[in-house]
Amino acid sequence: MSDPIRVLQYGLGPIGRAMARHVASRENLVLVGAVEIDPAKVGADLGTVIDLPEPLEIPVSGSLEEALAHASADAVLHTTQSYFPSFSPQILEILDAGLDVVSTSEELSFPWLSHPAEAGAIHAAAVRAGKTVLGTGVNPGFLMDTLPLALTALCQRVDRIEVTREMNASLRRGPFQMKIGSGLTVEAFEERMAQGRMGHVGLPESAGMIFDTLGKTLARFQTTVEPVVAGREIRTDHVTVSPGQVCGLKQIARADSPDGPFLTLTFIAALDHGTNEDTLRITGVPTLEVTLRGTNGDLATIAIAVNALFRVHGARPGLVTMRDLPLVARI
Amino acid sequence: MSDPIRVLQYGLGPIGRAMARHVASRENLVLVGAVEIDPAKVGADLGTVIDLPEPLEIPVSGSLEEALAHASADAVLHTTQSYFPSFSPQILEILDAGLDVVSTSEELSFPWLSHPAEAGAIHAAAVRAGKTVLGTGVNPGFLMDTLPLALTALCQRVDRIEVTREMNASLRRGPFQMKIGSGLTVEAFEERMAQGRMGHVGLPESAGMIFDTLGKTLARFQTTVEPVVAGREIRTDHVTVSPGQVCGLKQIARADSPDGPFLTLTFIAALDHGTNEDTLRITGVPTLEVTLRGTNGDLATIAIAVNALFRVHGARPGLVTMRDLPLVARI
Repeated sequence: MSDPIRVLQYGLGPIGRAMARHVASRENLVLVGAVEIDPAKVGADLGTVIDLPEPLEIPVSGSLEEALAHASADAVLHTTQSYFPSFSPQILEILDAGLDVVSTSEELSFPWLSHPAEAGAIHAAAVRAGKTVLGTGVNPGFLMDTLPLALTALCQRVDRIEVTREMNASLRRGPFQMKIGSGLTVEAFEERMAQGRMGHVGLPESAGMIFDTLGKTLARFQTTVEPVVAGREIRTDHVTVSPGQVCGLKQIARADSPDGPFLTLTFIAALDHGTNEDTLRITGVPTLEVTLRGTNGDLATIAIAVNALFRVHGARPGLVTMRDLPLVARI
Repeated sequence: MSDPIRVLQYGLGPIGRAMARHVASRENLVLVGAVEIDPAKVGADLGTVIDLPEPLEIPVSGSLEEALAHASADAVLHTTQSYFPSFSPQILEILDAGLDVVSTSEELSFPWLSHPAEAGAIHAAAVRAGKTVLGTGVNPGFLMDTLPLALTALCQRVDRIEVTREMNASLRRGPFQMKIGSGLTVEAFEERMAQGRMGHVGLPESAGMIFDTLGKTLARFQTTVEPVVAGREIRTDHVTVSPGQVCGLKQIARADSPDGPFLTLTFIAALDHGTNEDTLRITGVPTLEVTLRGTNGDLATIAIAVNALFRVHGARPGLVTMRDLPLVARI
């Protein structure tokens, strides 16, 4: 058995806290510290902040530098922001400190098509540091990219790929219920959409990984988002939605090759949504139809980021994606 | 675009012929020759033997040495025998000739637990040659090992894994219908079983890959095979089965860790079987349920072996398994 990986949790929002708690429970991993900007958490005991039964005698740090003054680490689990301008300086700082990184930042999962310059800068910094960076998660990172690609291994020919993720948001956290627009008027929803502040992040990255891996040219990429409107009152622990108000969203990304439509990614998340499963259809030789149940976004994102650590630590230096690594499993 | 891989097909049975035909149709691959022991095929034009519309002006060779006297090659697609004593000398010969190998030999898919000495010999020969060997296929190679392992990436904890493959054998080739015992009496079936000449090959290999990858100790492995008996007459293009005769088999492998039952692999193949799908259940956090339709054994085995070539060619030298490679996809 190799030495345990010493892990620093960067970001203590709901996902980050649950991830740190999971790290603390795993063999071969040691939680050595955490970084968080929320002043209410900085200085508090990490064990208390992540709801462990006992204190860890490790204070939450306000910066990476401070955290590393307290403890040595091998790798960072990074759960902060979705978009490049926000997370890029953090990733570069982690690499400069000489640590591997697994991040749930959506735009990092496959940045080579949408953000080639920023990806190149992170790759160069990782190579300089001799460390490895991976962006992953359940979506993007698995359901709409790595998994359909893995299934194409069974195909002699692939003509079309369609992935649909349908989620009953009533089963999810309050912040997620708000993020999909629950309780907004349709007008407010459309307004937020127009400001680019609504919708699932990661569909361009999933499409990018699929097209690039299959050697296809992405000729056209189009996303539409529409609100799901409640037909009757819906109450959850977090929000009450009146009939006619928004209770979720339906987002569709269509990506075409020069030959025409090739990929459709559909994301539906709504309160009281009757379907809670993922379906993949790969039309080709043979045609494959796959249905998944149980891929809870929070639980699974925490799992895949932590499981990927074992492949990222010691991998070749650079910015890698899920397709580049040996099989990530719950090792 | 890199240079096309020059491929030699080793074995021209039904799967090998279909595989060679597929290679001839793929970009970035060139079919440069074939080896076959059947004297009826040796010397004949390869294009004719594999049913291409035109001759290839390449004679089928009776030995690897002869094939390589005609043409240079980079890699071999190997489709001959299931068991180590039969295929091992062939793989060693291919490595000595300095070629990469992708083989559908079931026992090669994960030989490290069941055949460590033989696996070690092949690994050493591959390292000496600076070449790479992979055993793969749809099962073993994907459905009951690589895929469930890939899905555990979404799990924080894994308590049990169950995979069931149910096949309507009426949709399959004649040799497959015979292989599962169609048309035998129950007594003849039991007799062949006792001689070890019946049943799906590869369940120990799939179990081995799962246990080894998840870091679990395989404490106990048990397989049972029972005949599926026809309730009424069944006719296919290849066989007629009377009521009371065998129309297929049901094979179950159970693999336990020291803590108790962990893995169950169930393989059901029978004529007119009403279900034609694969189901995976991973009990854990979260619990995942996955259903696959369309994973035709012949089409998919040809696809995955050919698709894997692109990852094997240029990989690190040695005997590798599907879990060691970057994502295999229909690139």
